[in-house]
This record gives sequence, C-alpha cells and structure tokens, in this order.
Amino acid sequence: MRRFKLSKAFTLMESGPVVLVTTHDGEKANIMTISWTMVVDFTPVFAMTTGEWNHSFAALRKNRECVIAIPTVDMLDKVVGIGTCSGADTDKFARFKLTPVRGRIVKPPLIKECLANIECKVIDIIKKHNIVVMEAVVAHIDAARKEKRTLHAVGDGTFIVDGRRIDRRKMMASKIPGGI
Amino acid sequence: MRRFKLSKAFTLMESGPVVLVTTHDGEKANIMTISWTMVVDFTPVFAMTTGEWNHSFAALRKNRECVIAIPTVDMLDKVVGIGTCSGADTDKFARFKLTPVRGRIVKPPLIKECLANIECKVIDIIKKHNIVVMEAVVAHIDAARKEKRTLHAVGDGTFIVDGRRIDRRKMMASKIPGGI
Repeated sequence: MRRFKLSKAFTLMESGPVVLVTTHDGEKANIMTISWTMVVDFTPVFAMTTGEWNHSFAALRKNRECVIAIPTVDMLDKVVGIGTCSGADTDKFARFKLTPVRGRIVKPPLIKECLANIECKVIDIIKKHNIVVMEAVVAHIDAARKEKRTLHAVGDGTFIVDGRRIDRRKMMASKIPGGI
Repeated sequence: MRRFKLSKAFTLMESGPVVLVTTHDGEKANIMTISWTMVVDFTPVFAMTTGEWNHSFAALRKNRECVIAIPTVDMLDKVVGIGTCSGADTDKFARFKLTPVRGRIVKPPLIKECLANIECKVIDIIKKHNIVVMEAVVAHIDAARKEKRTLHAVGDGTFIVDGRRIDRRKMMASKIPGGI
C-alpha cells in the first residue's frame, strides 16, 4: 500500500461503497461492515451511522479512532460474513482470513486485503441520530491491485457492483477542488 | 409513478446514488444535485450534507421540506448541468426539460423523469457539520421505467454506473428488517 493524497480521499468514499471499519478497544481489534456513510467535507470529513447495536461502537466511543477499509467485489462474502457475526464472540481477522496492518497514526489496524484504507479520528458523535463524524488523517491505496470494483449494498441483501465509468470532468471542472 | 412501500424506501438510497433534491421557497421550486447522502434509519431517515453554498439551502431551511428524486444513467447530463448552475438565476425545471409533479404531502415537486421520488420533512439541521436530517413521508417509483441503473459520483468529475447485482439475501436474512 502506498499513501493516497488526503485531499483526494473523499473520492474513495463519495460513490457510496460498502466499507469495513476497524476499531481497537485497547486489547483487540474488531471489524464491522458499514453501508451507511457519507462524505461531509473535502478536508476530508466522513459521517457514518452506527450505535450501540454494533459491538465495535463501544471501542469507537472510547478510543475515538477507526480505519475505513474499502473492499472490492472479490471480498463480498467476507463483507457479508463480517456484517452478520459479532466481535463479542468472534475474532473477525482470524475468521475471515484478513491481515491487520499497523497504521501510521491510529491504533485500529488497516486491512491489507482492501483496495484502500483511511485512518480516521472521531471528531463528533451525534447521539440523537447515531451519526459518527470522523476526520481522515492518512489514506493508503493498493495501487497494484487488479480488482478495483467496489460494492454498493442495496439493503435488501443484494449488492450492486461498480459498472462502467463515465467522464464528465470538463463539465464538472468548476466544482472539483484543486481542479481536474 | 406508483407508491413505494415507505419501510423499504431506504433501499432506494442505500447504494449511494447521486440524487436530485427539490425545494420550494414559497414562490418557486428549485433543484440541486447532491452526492453526499446516507441512510440514518430504516424508518426511513436520511442525511445529506449541504449548506449556504447551495441556493436551495435557504428554501430548505425555511420550508423544511424536500423531495429526493433519483435519476438514472440516461439523465447524467441533466444531473451534471443542475449541479453546475444556480437556482439564483436559472429555472432548472425549464432549462433541463424536467417535469414538476405535485407531491402527496410536501410542497416541493417530484420530478416525473426520475426513477423514484421520496417526499421528506427536514427534522434536524446540524449546523456544525452542515448535515441535514430528513424523515421520508411518502415514496414513489416509476416501476414501468426501463432504465433503472443509477449513477454514483466519484467526486473527480467521473461517475460510476450501476453494474451487475449479486444476491446474498440468504446470508443477510437476519439483518434485513421485515425479512427478505
């Protein structure tokens, strides 16, 4: 994995891929599958919806750090598996044969097998809506990876795979920070 | 357009499509293109990031209603066009040849040409993060429409089109409200 420009890291998330979020409770790391995320600022700041119903939430609230890891289509069964068991009784790194890699800044690990990893600090938890707001501090990408298509959860148990990409950079030039 | 079950309306948004959001300021309707959205609850509740930089924001704050309209790939140039001009000096319905349709509950119009329309009430504006939280009150779908592939903005001026759909409903059954 090599570093990915932090000012462009929102482009890893804006399309709405389902992600794996790692946390660390001081003793061990855990992973949760999260589909409910959005970009909040280019700086970059992200939001996700999570709460007490996720075992990871206690660690997130205590440690106030996480890594957003972006899996690809070949990892679908791991993504679904991680989302349907609990860190309360499962070592998900072991069970799903994923490799934790030490991050540059935060304690929760990167996931080696993912396309990208974004180290984040929690900057706010809006309890009323179960929204967690995170500022990214370092981003990493596995540029050599062949499979780059991400997954989009529909919410009914089906997943949409990235299809073709259409370029409208000229039309959008005025709206893209730092130009195209 | 026919009614779409409100308890399933989050499945229209969870994959992260770029959307058109209509507002009404009491005199006229406007449309903005929004890519930064997420599901916040199954009920359904949605969040989006927007603020003063969007002309629509004043109407949204005043009227506290909007419609989330979901366009498809054949509407890409309208989506980009709407996102790169301002309602301050443009009647976007006229300019982009879109048809406003009266909603069931809210004052901002549905967009006839879109795949789906979700009427929403603003329930919170979190100023600190420019996050608007909305509760959906009615959802509509154009089930007869042939083109159903939505668009996912990357944020660099390119857009990803929905590709193939993979079914993991059996694995996900325990996580889907109301079953599969």
